[in-house]
Amino acid sequence: MGRRHQTISFLSDYGLTDEFVGVVHSVIRAIAPHVTVIDVSHDVAPHDVRAGGLTLVRAVQYLAPGVVLAVVDPGVGTDRRAVAVEVGAEGEAVFVGPDNGLLAPAVAMVGGAGRAVELLDPRYHLPAPGATFAGRDLFAPVAAHLCNGVDLAELGPPVDPASLQPGLLALPRFEDGRVETEILWVDRFGNAQLNVGPDDLRDLGDRVLVGWGEEVRTAVRVDAYAELATGELGLVVDSYGMLALTLDRASAADGLGLHPGDGVTLSAPA
Amino acid sequence: MGRRHQTISFLSDYGLTDEFVGVVHSVIRAIAPHVTVIDVSHDVAPHDVRAGGLTLVRAVQYLAPGVVLAVVDPGVGTDRRAVAVEVGAEGEAVFVGPDNGLLAPAVAMVGGAGRAVELLDPRYHLPAPGATFAGRDLFAPVAAHLCNGVDLAELGPPVDPASLQPGLLALPRFEDGRVETEILWVDRFGNAQLNVGPDDLRDLGDRVLVGWGEEVRTAVRVDAYAELATGELGLVVDSYGMLALTLDRASAADGLGLHPGDGVTLSAPA
Amino acid sequence: MGRRHQTISFLSDYGLTDEFVGVVHSVIRAIAPHVTVIDVSHDVAPHDVRAGGLTLVRAVQYLAPGVVLAVVDPGVGTDRRAVAVEVGAEGEAVFVGPDNGLLAPAVAMVGGAGRAVELLDPRYHLPAPGATFAGRDLFAPVAAHLCNGVDLAELGPPVDPASLQPGLLALPRFEDGRVETEILWVDRFGNAQLNVGPDDLRDLGDRVLVGWGEEVRTAVRVDAYAELATGELGLVVDSYGMLALTLDRASAADGLGLHPGDGVTLSAPA
Repeated sequence: MGRRHQTISFLSDYGLTDEFVGVVHSVIRAIAPHVTVIDVSHDVAPHDVRAGGLTLVRAVQYLAPGVVLAVVDPGVGTDRRAVAVEVGAEGEAVFVGPDNGLLAPAVAMVGGAGRAVELLDPRYHLPAPGATFAGRDLFAPVAAHLCNGVDLAELGPPVDPASLQPGLLALPRFEDGRVETEILWVDRFGNAQLNVGPDDLRDLGDRVLVGWGEEVRTAVRVDAYAELATGELGLVVDSYGMLALTLDRASAADGLGLHPGDGVTLSAPA
Repeated sequence: MGRRHQTISFLSDYGLTDEFVGVVHSVIRAIAPHVTVIDVSHDVAPHDVRAGGLTLVRAVQYLAPGVVLAVVDPGVGTDRRAVAVEVGAEGEAVFVGPDNGLLAPAVAMVGGAGRAVELLDPRYHLPAPGATFAGRDLFAPVAAHLCNGVDLAELGPPVDPASLQPGLLALPRFEDGRVETEILWVDRFGNAQLNVGPDDLRDLGDRVLVGWGEEVRTAVRVDAYAELATGELGLVVDSYGMLALTLDRASAADGLGLHPGDGVTLSAPA
Repeated sequence: MGRRHQTISFLSDYGLTDEFVGVVHSVIRAIAPHVTVIDVSHDVAPHDVRAGGLTLVRAVQYLAPGVVLAVVDPGVGTDRRAVAVEVGAEGEAVFVGPDNGLLAPAVAMVGGAGRAVELLDPRYHLPAPGATFAGRDLFAPVAAHLCNGVDLAELGPPVDPASLQPGLLALPRFEDGRVETEILWVDRFGNAQLNVGPDDLRDLGDRVLVGWGEEVRTAVRVDAYAELATGELGLVVDSYGMLALTLDRASAADGLGLHPGDGVTLSAPA
């Protein structure tokens, strides 16, 4: 028997309009009624594995111990494997989801993969009346059985952790005093998180030229959103320790026309 | 005393923008703190009883044992009855909601109505400061009291199960080798579920003419979404066992201009 | 030691697209696993303290005993205090959030502030990797520690309840037989709640002239939404005991172009 778990943290691209999220909760409740399910987010854009992986890696350090269930799965029914991956000492946490890069950044953040298995044993799945709905028929029941103390090894054949699909996160490039960055995420308040931290900008001063598309503007580096004057563009260390473009009480992304994946160049003023 | 229940599965058209769903959870928590509430969905279109009933019937086989609380109620304060309906052996589950056809498809799916009562006993309701908010003042407290072991018969006078409002679901029509179908549901990923299963299409081959509005296209019957080439229209047995029009990694509904309730004709190519 | 609590009722402007709400749930779960978190609403418009305060005051009488965690916070990192405020006999409930007027209407509704403290003791906060994310790093851990029985006085220095920021709610004005009102809230169904109750309209009859912008229409006073003919404008005592403009099975706000904060004049027909 493995360790029993009390919490499943659940992320998906299912949205809340259909009953998908509710059905996954119900399947877990029926198999493992002692478990509390925490919804990390279900509004990942449909099929956007990269955005899902970024959401998960931002949240992962705060998740309660237990099982992480994550499903963003463009290739349902194709050749990606369904996996469960242990992390931490003695399988403190287990990640369950498709092996398509979604889990990789979060798994790496909390110490890397320990034991891993492919979820092939049908004893821990539900029968489907038609096409498999992987969240409902496979991932949710597996997550619930893990919480009941089923050992990882029962769920299917072992997988070499080194063979798990890596996440694809763009790294910043440093060239001629410029830093070529990418927008990782635009949050509800319109802050645009870049793929650089404050250490990456040591060579730049308190004012930074920010270029995107055909535009160039000057941003000031501030410690808090409220230090900005109205309409002033700021570069702040956000609550995840990354640099973000921000406007006080206004959406930087809307005001500047920025979107996740857009390139942004940072450089010193002339 | 009736059976105690541990779970309430809750569906409504309340949306998540207002506090309605949170207040219903709170009312239940205050009366029956041992209960876990699972949100099936609250994004049923306002007043759309048909869509709510379809959402419930898709979910019902997966719901945890206990009470099902469903509220989509265009005629608040009019002559529809408020009811509780037992299903299953010894009242394994109880459905609570308006008697307007919302509950009927799900009740039928899990075996049909056993005992039923009209919710007229004010001891199990909350007083309202103005107009009755039925979810908060009537249905939620009744659901919570049922979970505490109040017997159905305490809640109000018996109702003849045969008098409960039936659901109105369109049946397919078979004419001259054509099948006249209707779109039941468009999911978040744009798959358009029809009111036919694979058995209804036994006489049609692997390629099917799909007509809607002024358009006709050929669809291929596939077992999984990923078997489709980009842009190819597929007819797949979806995860509920019904046929759905689908495009791989794209929204069939957006691409083809399909909406719930639209008619779709299926026939063999000439 | 203070009283232990079993429930945290949580309201914010975080939305459900990002992982903010999930992370707050996770932080609470990790510190106080026995607690159930009830989401009141997270779709308060970004930074809209007034709308958040109105949502909270509508819900507050129905909330389960325990801690109320509310975060709508335009001035993150500025000079507003972070506070916890007890209400009721022996600290039956505790409100946790920014001291910016958000909590005030709800606190007043349930009896007014008892003991209050400023949340300055870092033992009950989480360290932030960058800018403080107040919900995650400060308010959620404080709410969880309160549920574990930490006494309010442990969390920081006392605050004079009289110094707490009041809520700013517009009062109706009565002039020359007219009542100048304001729309407090438009709900999902399009009902427009006014800042007057039925007692404020004693001098007006069953038909009332309703003026807004350049428009004037006659509304009929009804007890239930369904008493209205199609297209007829009604003035109903809503489920919170306030007057609301309403159309049967249609959105009054959409049909009439009404928004929260708009002024509406009520008067007797000539």
